[in-house]
Amino acid sequence: MTGPRPAVYSTPGFPTDVRVYEVGPRDGLQAEATLVPTHVKVRFIKELAEAGLPVVEATSFVSPKWVPQLSDAAEVLAELGDLTSHPVLVPNMRGLERARESGAKSVAVFVSATETFARKNLNMSRASACETAMEVVAEAIKRGMTARGYLSMCFGDPWEGPVGKDTVAEVSRQLLDAGCYEISLGDTIGVATAGHVKALIDEHVQGGVPLERLALHFHDTYGQALSNVLAGLQAGITCFDASTGGIGGCPFAGSATGNLAMEELLWLLHGLGISTGVDLDAVVRAGQTITDLLGRRPSRIAQAMAG
Amino acid sequence: MTGPRPAVYSTPGFPTDVRVYEVGPRDGLQAEATLVPTHVKVRFIKELAEAGLPVVEATSFVSPKWVPQLSDAAEVLAELGDLTSHPVLVPNMRGLERARESGAKSVAVFVSATETFARKNLNMSRASACETAMEVVAEAIKRGMTARGYLSMCFGDPWEGPVGKDTVAEVSRQLLDAGCYEISLGDTIGVATAGHVKALIDEHVQGGVPLERLALHFHDTYGQALSNVLAGLQAGITCFDASTGGIGGCPFAGSATGNLAMEELLWLLHGLGISTGVDLDAVVRAGQTITDLLGRRPSRIAQAMAG
Repeated sequence: MTGPRPAVYSTPGFPTDVRVYEVGPRDGLQAEATLVPTHVKVRFIKELAEAGLPVVEATSFVSPKWVPQLSDAAEVLAELGDLTSHPVLVPNMRGLERARESGAKSVAVFVSATETFARKNLNMSRASACETAMEVVAEAIKRGMTARGYLSMCFGDPWEGPVGKDTVAEVSRQLLDAGCYEISLGDTIGVATAGHVKALIDEHVQGGVPLERLALHFHDTYGQALSNVLAGLQAGITCFDASTGGIGGCPFAGSATGNLAMEELLWLLHGLGISTGVDLDAVVRAGQTITDLLGRRPSRIAQAMAG
Repeated sequence: MTGPRPAVYSTPGFPTDVRVYEVGPRDGLQAEATLVPTHVKVRFIKELAEAGLPVVEATSFVSPKWVPQLSDAAEVLAELGDLTSHPVLVPNMRGLERARESGAKSVAVFVSATETFARKNLNMSRASACETAMEVVAEAIKRGMTARGYLSMCFGDPWEGPVGKDTVAEVSRQLLDAGCYEISLGDTIGVATAGHVKALIDEHVQGGVPLERLALHFHDTYGQALSNVLAGLQAGITCFDASTGGIGGCPFAGSATGNLAMEELLWLLHGLGISTGVDLDAVVRAGQTITDLLGRRPSRIAQAMAG
């Protein structure tokens, strides 16, 4: 299966290289109803790594009570062998401890940009959640690990509506100050549009946050994810999260549409002449396998290539 | 059904108003397997017009042998009453005559940017097809009608691959010189990316084509349509085609994904603070009705709003 390719039009003002950050095995699978066997997860992660994806977030050490889909986090890491450099999500000190015992070398923590989502998702105030995340980051670094910060609901949540850009930038700064190597600004419910993306990045720049410390994480709930990526690229961002096969979903919208599909992100970047080091065909194959297994419609690019 | 709205971030460099051009009843329905009863088509067109859509391409006077889905073109126009100012597609003099007899006041002609597609779609050379289109345009204008030109396969076709920008710009100029008020540059197979869009627009500008005479028409086969719109907006284009419910499809890819969904286009534009005069909720309702009838998955925005 090798499909058509976009014609390459390198355009001034865009970066020559972009880092793509694969979240399918974690952010994707945690939101799917189907429980995926451990060996299938491991094969999926290995296929993605072999496709050239530089980072594949492997799993999450949240409580199995909250996320039964990823209750086999330790088993996944055990089977990954030398791929344990790929990051895992940890919600608290207990998760960090389990991740460390499993051989994880890199973790990701998460904080909500809105008060309501912090309370609903973590049952604590945003300030407490941020405090916890910063403690986890400090401890991870002390243990020789690296830490990424996820900031969710950066463009609004279903309860409070739009979120102040200054609030988001302030939490970003706190997480960076705590030692995160990068902050991923997430549009958890997919409501962002291009102008909002630019405004939020500008707010960070004005606040002294270096652009190379920011990543963008879009969901395609309203079909806006890829135009938001374009706006982010133009604002100077060089790291984007996506999920092969577009797997995952937004738990606060009935829509089956979830994360931005890695295939669509790669198509855009490669068409702009931007290097990613990733083999699109191999990603399409890995995505086709996982969407078949989940009973999901394949990504649009997989459908078109199969056509 | 009123859903969330994108926060509005007006951004310098974007137009204050954009004209959206609805192609669902024609470009959408012509590519759907389901035959839609005439009264349903008429209701769909009326709902779209009532939602504030300034132009709703109503039907096509191609041969019923080629496109049985639209064989009731005359009946549709007869039932439209005072909405006959909305354009209809005509392939040749015979189609123009039928459209005129049915009361049409505005027509659209189409030409392929590639030789192979001209031969496959119209069974004539590109030059002959262009000649025919120009004759139809001249005759339409003589009869007091207005004419729009569609140029298909502007970003490549499945046989020849990429298409020379200079070729596309040359055909655009010919159609404008023939009297078309506007040329819609179509990415029929959905392969365009943002840099290609900018390059093609720049080629037209260098060739002296005024930006206000160009429209862009994207298909979402590879998920690129909305980021291509953003690139088009940034290049100065102020008219975009889309199809409510995303109905339609690309006949040369197995994918069910077709035209850019009008709902997603409106979400982007309204989020950028760009006026369209269109009621998004009303468009979502009209789209939900037609996708239900066609047995298609609703647009992502309709799914999210229903969720």
